Amino acid sequence: MTTLHDCYSVEESGSDNWIQHSFVSRTVKEHSYKIIESLDLFDIENTTITHNCFGTSGTKKRCFVVVDDNVYKIYGLAIESYFNHHGVDYKIKKLQVSESTKSIEKVLEVVSELDNFDLSRRDEPIIAIGGGVLTDICSLTANLYRRSTQCIKIPTTLMGQIDAGIGVKTGINFNNNKNRLGTYYCSGTVLIDRNFLKSLDNRSFNNGLAEIMKMALIKEKHLFELLEKHKQNICKDRLIGKQDYSTIIQLSIKAMLEELAPNLWEKSLTRVVDFGHTFSPVVEMKAVLELQHGEAVSIDMAYSLLLARKKEILSEEDSTRALNLFVDLGLPLDHDLCTSELLIKGLEDSTLHRAGNQNFPLPENIGSSVFCNNITHGDIDYIVSKMKSIGNSSAA
Amino acid sequence: MTTLHDCYSVEESGSDNWIQHSFVSRTVKEHSYKIIESLDLFDIENTTITHNCFGTSGTKKRCFVVVDDNVYKIYGLAIESYFNHHGVDYKIKKLQVSESTKSIEKVLEVVSELDNFDLSRRDEPIIAIGGGVLTDICSLTANLYRRSTQCIKIPTTLMGQIDAGIGVKTGINFNNNKNRLGTYYCSGTVLIDRNFLKSLDNRSFNNGLAEIMKMALIKEKHLFELLEKHKQNICKDRLIGKQDYSTIIQLSIKAMLEELAPNLWEKSLTRVVDFGHTFSPVVEMKAVLELQHGEAVSIDMAYSLLLARKKEILSEEDSTRALNLFVDLGLPLDHDLCTSELLIKGLEDSTLHRAGNQNFPLPENIGSSVFCNNITHGDIDYIVSKMKSIGNSSAA
Repeated sequence: MTTLHDCYSVEESGSDNWIQHSFVSRTVKEHSYKIIESLDLFDIENTTITHNCFGTSGTKKRCFVVVDDNVYKIYGLAIESYFNHHGVDYKIKKLQVSESTKSIEKVLEVVSELDNFDLSRRDEPIIAIGGGVLTDICSLTANLYRRSTQCIKIPTTLMGQIDAGIGVKTGINFNNNKNRLGTYYCSGTVLIDRNFLKSLDNRSFNNGLAEIMKMALIKEKHLFELLEKHKQNICKDRLIGKQDYSTIIQLSIKAMLEELAPNLWEKSLTRVVDFGHTFSPVVEMKAVLELQHGEAVSIDMAYSLLLARKKEILSEEDSTRALNLFVDLGLPLDHDLCTSELLIKGLEDSTLHRAGNQNFPLPENIGSSVFCNNITHGDIDYIVSKMKSIGNSSAA
Repeated sequence: MTTLHDCYSVEESGSDNWIQHSFVSRTVKEHSYKIIESLDLFDIENTTITHNCFGTSGTKKRCFVVVDDNVYKIYGLAIESYFNHHGVDYKIKKLQVSESTKSIEKVLEVVSELDNFDLSRRDEPIIAIGGGVLTDICSLTANLYRRSTQCIKIPTTLMGQIDAGIGVKTGINFNNNKNRLGTYYCSGTVLIDRNFLKSLDNRSFNNGLAEIMKMALIKEKHLFELLEKHKQNICKDRLIGKQDYSTIIQLSIKAMLEELAPNLWEKSLTRVVDFGHTFSPVVEMKAVLELQHGEAVSIDMAYSLLLARKKEILSEEDSTRALNLFVDLGLPLDHDLCTSELLIKGLEDSTLHRAGNQNFPLPENIGSSVFCNNITHGDIDYIVSKMKSIGNSSAA
């Protein structure tokens, strides 16, 4: 597969007025990675890790494992038993991470230990076990370490399993700016084990559920229907134990990959995955201590549904149906901070990042979407007052 | 060109013993960059920069210019006049760099100023003007800043123009390890202006000449002949003023690009450009204050020529001819630190980095090479004593 596509050329051209000579170097490369769903990854009988994370050479298996501090408290013993049982030469680095310590210092902390462990970049992976913040830090570290080391990601949160952990974006915050430094890096295989979701609290679980809702609304009607069908138990069950739950995870991952794969380096600024991500960055930054990412996205989506209705892109029936599902799943619709002024600022910032175009993805039916470029301040005023009236009536 | 090659797929497969489901995301992407040779880039009449460094949109041209402190002292006024004349909104950041300050701190120093300037990553390039250390730091910064910002490189040293500046490797030192952190990044156009070489001292010029010699010996006989033809004046003339000099630069760049393009991410560990880079890393590290990179490479090549002769790969005539050219060009053949012990350590370290194979490129004639994998300690002892005898006889 690789050899079919990989090719290169060096083209020369001669001189003109000011240019003496020029060359163009072109290399065509395949960037690929695998996402594998398995249950009980650290059951010593489970060969998913031993078969998929190490080279096939006969040499000793070695890896450097970075585990979220909290994840280690619950799964540390199982992880160590697993590697011991399989004769893997490993070192575990426990890392305490949060949005406020998602920094270059954490990257360098890991790098120092990689040096001490003397990790060989070609055969020995970093295995990152934790939420999106941890996998973002580790995949950036892996990209930087000797210019590219393999990083196996094992996301332990729902957000990580269907969103943050399955793409190629790495990043850390800097200078109070979210993900100001990072790369696009196909770091290696991603392993998804839903059993990690059992140890999440409700709020963390719902944080990820918001991103599943996003894919459902803009792209996958069947996913929406499955969420609707299981709305009573999905959170309690943590997506474990029913075939439909497995389907929900698979549809979410597939939908996300389909959107990412043709646009891995984000050249295109017309992205349906931006649904829920137009107003939310400013809301999230303003309420940084109060709101999780998925909650801000959820609120953004709720406003966007009202906007799609206002623009007569979405029917009243679908809009109501969608908003009801938000409520039933425990996803927030609004926050006190959401004023016309803030949402307009959110739209303006996003427009700037989309090279001057609003490119606002809106559902036109449940499961499909269009891009809207004519949203006015009046539209924003309308949806804000509409949302406040929904809030008042439900509070009443 | 791009659309022809760029493609993607998301493939699914079902469950087996432990694997519930799996996906493979494949994206094929073209990575390309341009290298343009021009003279007097900052002559206000010269449109190379204005035509090749900014987007074609009608908006105001903006860029962030990082200039080596010493380069600024000589060319700062010309650079500012150029941008002023062309109505470019720019900010100049003077950066003092050296091998010992090629650090993450320098990257963050630039990032902070990018934030202050509010650089837009899609339209507004970083323009890096300086030697290899500066362009390595700036291209890494550009790769990390908002996950990829364009970086126009304008190498001002000979080493930068034919080697360090024209590839895709970025890097900084960490923990006393050279380029421990970095990336492979097609950062943007590279502009080559030989007139910058006028302000180099002899030693810096020769530092780059060593890498030209490398390409000549392993790949380009005509380049070797041109070096031989102009050996008396090449350093004094700084490669300026003759058509042959222009050819020397172009052949060097072309040869380097031809080697890099099929192996941009260094997957292959059989690289002719490793000629001169087997013993040199340990020599360079040991004599870090005394030897420049090109000098260590030159010494490595001299030993390698003796090795090629010992292995009967290279004729006595070619070996002598090559070593004579080293002397005539003022390139060093040896250093007191070079003992059998150190060279053996160099070979062992390099073998480790080449996944257990020596993959030692040796010239079999001037202008072509083979890989050697059977170098013994006895061979090293032989070339060391041979080199010392050459040194003694020439000293006598």
